Amino acid sequence: MKNVSIIGVGLIGGSFALNLKAIFNDLIILGIDSSKSHISEALDLGIIDKEGSFESIIKSDLVVIATPVNVTLELLPTILNRISSKALVIDMGSTKADICNLVDMHPKRSQFLANHPIAGTEFSGPGSAYISLFKNKINIVCDIEKTNPELGNPLIKTFKNMGMNIRYMDSKAHDKHIAYVSHLSHISSFMLGKTVIEKEKNERNIFDMAGSGFESTVRLAKSSPEMWTPIFEQNKTNVIETLEEYIQNLNHFKSLMEANDFEAIRNEMKNTNYIKTILKGIS
Amino acid sequence: MKNVSIIGVGLIGGSFALNLKAIFNDLIILGIDSSKSHISEALDLGIIDKEGSFESIIKSDLVVIATPVNVTLELLPTILNRISSKALVIDMGSTKADICNLVDMHPKRSQFLANHPIAGTEFSGPGSAYISLFKNKINIVCDIEKTNPELGNPLIKTFKNMGMNIRYMDSKAHDKHIAYVSHLSHISSFMLGKTVIEKEKNERNIFDMAGSGFESTVRLAKSSPEMWTPIFEQNKTNVIETLEEYIQNLNHFKSLMEANDFEAIRNEMKNTNYIKTILKGIS
Repeated sequence: MKNVSIIGVGLIGGSFALNLKAIFNDLIILGIDSSKSHISEALDLGIIDKEGSFESIIKSDLVVIATPVNVTLELLPTILNRISSKALVIDMGSTKADICNLVDMHPKRSQFLANHPIAGTEFSGPGSAYISLFKNKINIVCDIEKTNPELGNPLIKTFKNMGMNIRYMDSKAHDKHIAYVSHLSHISSFMLGKTVIEKEKNERNIFDMAGSGFESTVRLAKSSPEMWTPIFEQNKTNVIETLEEYIQNLNHFKSLMEANDFEAIRNEMKNTNYIKTILKGIS
Repeated sequence: MKNVSIIGVGLIGGSFALNLKAIFNDLIILGIDSSKSHISEALDLGIIDKEGSFESIIKSDLVVIATPVNVTLELLPTILNRISSKALVIDMGSTKADICNLVDMHPKRSQFLANHPIAGTEFSGPGSAYISLFKNKINIVCDIEKTNPELGNPLIKTFKNMGMNIRYMDSKAHDKHIAYVSHLSHISSFMLGKTVIEKEKNERNIFDMAGSGFESTVRLAKSSPEMWTPIFEQNKTNVIETLEEYIQNLNHFKSLMEANDFEAIRNEMKNTNYIKTILKGIS
């Protein structure tokens, strides 16, 4: 691998570029981003070597799409049309079914690898990129059977060199499960933030009553609307299903409180404490 | 101060004891706890000097009640009856209106100081106690005008010596605001955990798809049901109000998704990003 194009030089694309540089010698990384200030920041930070363009992509051995997922849908078919016959394109998005569906019949489908590294923070932009972002994280590779193994296998080896553990999954199953363990958390956090801000907007000093518990629960409400709006749009059906179940559970909790059934409230919490066992597995 | 009784030698009581020992010389700390294993653990860890009893409380200069809030309601009147005329009783609970109301007419009301240190973790028991728990945290002191300043002021100075910043507040206002910035977070987190566990119970391996975002949002679902059930019970009216607003906001978000109004979804998130500014003030 000699020439790599990274489209979207933010937290994910930037961190990926830093890792590629650490693994491969003599690599030229070209950055493409709709924000000129991101490009110059990424150049200053040594994340990319020079600015690329859609014309320069033809020379790349690897094209990494690390944009919001709506932009990925717009770009992928054109990029596949443009790349050389030995190049690979990967994406990094939080939704996988729409993108896999879109290029399912594309003549160069075998040159695309659909990925979702379960890594990120609530920050964005090249300044938030860091090399250990992917270390000990899961990377979900979807519909692997559709990618040419000669192109896909070396990249999967590279993911492992970055410290990632690989999981293989069908793209539709990915979207269904990720709605529960990621997308719903973002909505619960955003709406918690909204509820508290609305109530307390005239009493700013109330917020120093908030402790680390509130901070932890509301952390994801700092996330980028530009990134998350298209995720919710693409995973609409699954996300609405999780939201309905979540709202139903909240209504049930409220009705138990209204009925003064605090024994049932205690049991709800006791059963959910099982999350301790689950979280031990992921941290 | 020579003789202190700590009732409930868990995370809060234990950490408070460690701080008192660091500030005062020749202090004897007696521990009282319904769990015998907590007492022996607290003795082993040097958190308390010996086991106390309701009989020994009469000799204490300070009695600290750090129990679940239902136990505080049961104990406080009896303890006030028992203490010497120069002793002070403080509580540490997450609800303040019921407890202040209960002893409002008690002949020794001026010997009680109602507190809520905004400090804690999702862990409990003497083993979870640590000396820096209160450092740079807010301690909310309620209905201060009802406490004898000769008894209250030295203790407020002690709180400051532990690194706490003091806020004064009416007990009813405390309960109303804390419902938003603490109690609601716990319910949103517990119900998030419940929703995901229910859905994915037969597919345990799905949980390694969960990243740090899910972990952060669901952290409070590890909290103790024994501690939180009576908090929800005592703050029922306020908590139900916050829950209704939260559920309403979630339903609104869902209806925007169903209507494909993703521009409005984006604005919801953009407005809530204001939480960044707020959180800067508390961390």
